[in-house]
Amino acid sequence: MPPSRISLRSRVYRQLDPRAWAAGGLSPVNKLLVVLILLATATAIAETEPELYGPYGTWFDALELLFGLLFLVEYGARLWSIAEDRQDGSALARRLRFVFSPSALLDLLVVAVTLLPFIGLNPAMLRLVRLLRIARLAKLGRMSLALRRVHSALWLRRYELGLTVAIGVAVIIVGASALYWLEGDLQPDKFGSIPRSLWWAVVTLTTIGYGDAYPISVGGKIAAALLAFAGVGLIALPAGIMANAMQEAMRREPAGEQAD
Amino acid sequence: MPPSRISLRSRVYRQLDPRAWAAGGLSPVNKLLVVLILLATATAIAETEPELYGPYGTWFDALELLFGLLFLVEYGARLWSIAEDRQDGSALARRLRFVFSPSALLDLLVVAVTLLPFIGLNPAMLRLVRLLRIARLAKLGRMSLALRRVHSALWLRRYELGLTVAIGVAVIIVGASALYWLEGDLQPDKFGSIPRSLWWAVVTLTTIGYGDAYPISVGGKIAAALLAFAGVGLIALPAGIMANAMQEAMRREPAGEQAD
Amino acid sequence: MPPSRISLRSRVYRQLDPRAWAAGGLSPVNKLLVVLILLATATAIAETEPELYGPYGTWFDALELLFGLLFLVEYGARLWSIAEDRQDGSALARRLRFVFSPSALLDLLVVAVTLLPFIGLNPAMLRLVRLLRIARLAKLGRMSLALRRVHSALWLRRYELGLTVAIGVAVIIVGASALYWLEGDLQPDKFGSIPRSLWWAVVTLTTIGYGDAYPISVGGKIAAALLAFAGVGLIALPAGIMANAMQEAMRREPAGEQAD
Amino acid sequence: MPPSRISLRSRVYRQLDPRAWAAGGLSPVNKLLVVLILLATATAIAETEPELYGPYGTWFDALELLFGLLFLVEYGARLWSIAEDRQDGSALARRLRFVFSPSALLDLLVVAVTLLPFIGLNPAMLRLVRLLRIARLAKLGRMSLALRRVHSALWLRRYELGLTVAIGVAVIIVGASALYWLEGDLQPDKFGSIPRSLWWAVVTLTTIGYGDAYPISVGGKIAAALLAFAGVGLIALPAGIMANAMQEAMRREPAGEQAD
Repeated sequence: MPPSRISLRSRVYRQLDPRAWAAGGLSPVNKLLVVLILLATATAIAETEPELYGPYGTWFDALELLFGLLFLVEYGARLWSIAEDRQDGSALARRLRFVFSPSALLDLLVVAVTLLPFIGLNPAMLRLVRLLRIARLAKLGRMSLALRRVHSALWLRRYELGLTVAIGVAVIIVGASALYWLEGDLQPDKFGSIPRSLWWAVVTLTTIGYGDAYPISVGGKIAAALLAFAGVGLIALPAGIMANAMQEAMRREPAGEQAD
Repeated sequence: MPPSRISLRSRVYRQLDPRAWAAGGLSPVNKLLVVLILLATATAIAETEPELYGPYGTWFDALELLFGLLFLVEYGARLWSIAEDRQDGSALARRLRFVFSPSALLDLLVVAVTLLPFIGLNPAMLRLVRLLRIARLAKLGRMSLALRRVHSALWLRRYELGLTVAIGVAVIIVGASALYWLEGDLQPDKFGSIPRSLWWAVVTLTTIGYGDAYPISVGGKIAAALLAFAGVGLIALPAGIMANAMQEAMRREPAGEQAD
Repeated sequence: MPPSRISLRSRVYRQLDPRAWAAGGLSPVNKLLVVLILLATATAIAETEPELYGPYGTWFDALELLFGLLFLVEYGARLWSIAEDRQDGSALARRLRFVFSPSALLDLLVVAVTLLPFIGLNPAMLRLVRLLRIARLAKLGRMSLALRRVHSALWLRRYELGLTVAIGVAVIIVGASALYWLEGDLQPDKFGSIPRSLWWAVVTLTTIGYGDAYPISVGGKIAAALLAFAGVGLIALPAGIMANAMQEAMRREPAGEQAD
Repeated sequence: MPPSRISLRSRVYRQLDPRAWAAGGLSPVNKLLVVLILLATATAIAETEPELYGPYGTWFDALELLFGLLFLVEYGARLWSIAEDRQDGSALARRLRFVFSPSALLDLLVVAVTLLPFIGLNPAMLRLVRLLRIARLAKLGRMSLALRRVHSALWLRRYELGLTVAIGVAVIIVGASALYWLEGDLQPDKFGSIPRSLWWAVVTLTTIGYGDAYPISVGGKIAAALLAFAGVGLIALPAGIMANAMQEAMRREPAGEQAD
């Protein structure tokens, strides 16, 4: 079909909505948007570093203004082209539905946190805005069909994963109580109360082991060894569940349909 | 069936016993009890922290009194309504069986440790009582049908899990002996005897690695590297066993029957 | 069959050899031997601790003498009763085969390291003997039919496990080389040569992370992050292999035949 | 077939090319080459250590000269015998194809970095050359048919593994942002910017936990505990994927065909 017979709005819609792109994978415009989002996230991370923002601050501001305008154009184009969507109701109804959809609200937030500092903002707010710019990474969620299916697979296993987390929390509370009892007097700043012991118990059960808190008495070490063994057993539970969920999610989605 | 024709005792029994609730999941009263148990556990954890108990001690005491009375009412209601249970023997026989069942003894312990401090107790006992209040978390066990089935699945695999633990303990003893031999003279406070080396071996095999004890000689580091590799291999064993057990437990229990 | 018609030697043989015990599981004598071996191992561990051996040295020596005599009696009983074994050749041939079998040589070593200190031994040898007493744990190997089958299952997967270890070693060498290049001048005592960097690489890839060596430059941290990600991926490999091997070993051995 | 009727070039070719060796496994010459490569890698690792190179420098140089000449002979023999390969084109065309193949370019690089120091090289270059000698380990890749098949199995799962890495990177960025927000003012050298926090987030999510950076405030510890739980869940994802990929790779390659 000759491109002259398809309206510009329809072509923009097909480029922007991943479900409307017939060729499979991502459209060229969406591929560019993925690169833009990754660049904007990297910029947001880099500009929190004083050693980088200090000497190159004006360049970062210019880059943020550019990202803000590009995301504004993207938002406008989505708002304009959504009328091509095959939903019930008038073009206005579709646009209203779009405006209040979670992904469009996220888009608007991204535009706001990118452009707000240029309107004038006090320094305290600036830091929060700088942090919220990391949220631009969440815009990628729209692009990935696979992510959505993995999410639904995990949703089916939410009960198993929840049970594992519940057992883990119970083991952590029991372990923290034991160390509070055994070492509360020896190291009061680390095990002087159960809330203080909880930090040690989490760091031990997940086998991280920073080394800022550890038992020094024989009884405390025996209790810690039991918790460590429980940790190895508990880490095994989500491994099995996630392996099953992953396997199921991949069986539902053959390699040929993947959005990449 | 009109509610007027069912006795109050029967209705209380159906609300309290998870197996007697026909609608599936937990009854409204049991859902409230789950929330109450979680709140009481959080309170017991928080009140061990001097920075919280110091300024808000009277509020915590009032909360504990409330929890104690509510758990007393729960115990009384269970004792009264258990006569509705379809077991052999008289109502008295059923009540005696209930009183000496593990979960009822736990309930009585929970009531005791919650209310005892208000009768008068010396400070040394108070700390133990405060710790035993964490045991209220164990009351949740009655609510979870799924937990009971996972437990029975693990029971079937007890031999495999026991063998894994036995291999792990043997590897820890061999590793601790090697470091005692190689670094016993270099770091006598950490590797001067096998019992002292055992702590290092447990922390290494479970890949926690606090950093309070580690080898400093070339020979000790080579032995530690071998133990670390064994640790990665041994952690893999329970992962496989638990994955199988979890899969089997979930196959036996379809999602629709879950108690939540 | 009346016990009077079976010779004492035959009854001793049935008690001692796990394969000759018809009832399944371990014979009463072998169960006692398992307890004895575990007690002897715990004693050997405890007596290396000066704080325990110092005040209770004579008690430990008496216990060791007792263990030594009991293991001597066990060795003698095995040597005497092995003539009942249904192997070709004369009773003498069976006894010679037994004397030079690995498990009998281990038994003799155990008797030797337990009784030698009482004959008279210089202190330097004493320490080695004390360590070798841990080898008594290996006597348990004879008791476990399941361990032998798991071992043969792992033997079938030796190629996969070997490949995993080879990939792991290669990744460790590459990681150590990278840190030697990036931080050799910054921390010469930790990364000043590849052999020195290897210790850090092993501790990182196995996710132990003692904290005695870690990169401090940006380049070193990026290289360490890549190694950490590789570590998570590599730990996953033996988990899959061991899960399969464990599953297969358990399929071959039904629960009813287990030796426990 | 009598060996006298096969040309020397053909016999050399069969010895050197793993695919041309009919008997299965590795040919005697290739087995010798494997040992040579492992020895050369161990030598390259050892000679970076000043305490070894200092006293034994001339021995290491002699060993390197020997390795260089042997690898030169191997390269020449491969170049000469490749004419026996059953590919289209003249012997010259086959040799040109071989010269520009990745494995032959690697061989040439190995010969160069081994022999270059003997021609005369400034000290700065020497260190890089010494590091590049580790690349000799990569020569082993040609020998392993199994490695190639595992590689192709992982290539089929590249999308799943990529998605896991992407989720991991996103979780790390979110965790680092949270700690930058919560502890940026408390520990500015560790959490003063998101790039600085990223190091902590990687070390925590992979459960390494060196202990050089950890949260000290209540809010930071809660955020770290959530990241630690996410880490346990995320480590489970590649475990499942790799287990499946490994299983599939082993099903395709029966034990009897393995190159060992």
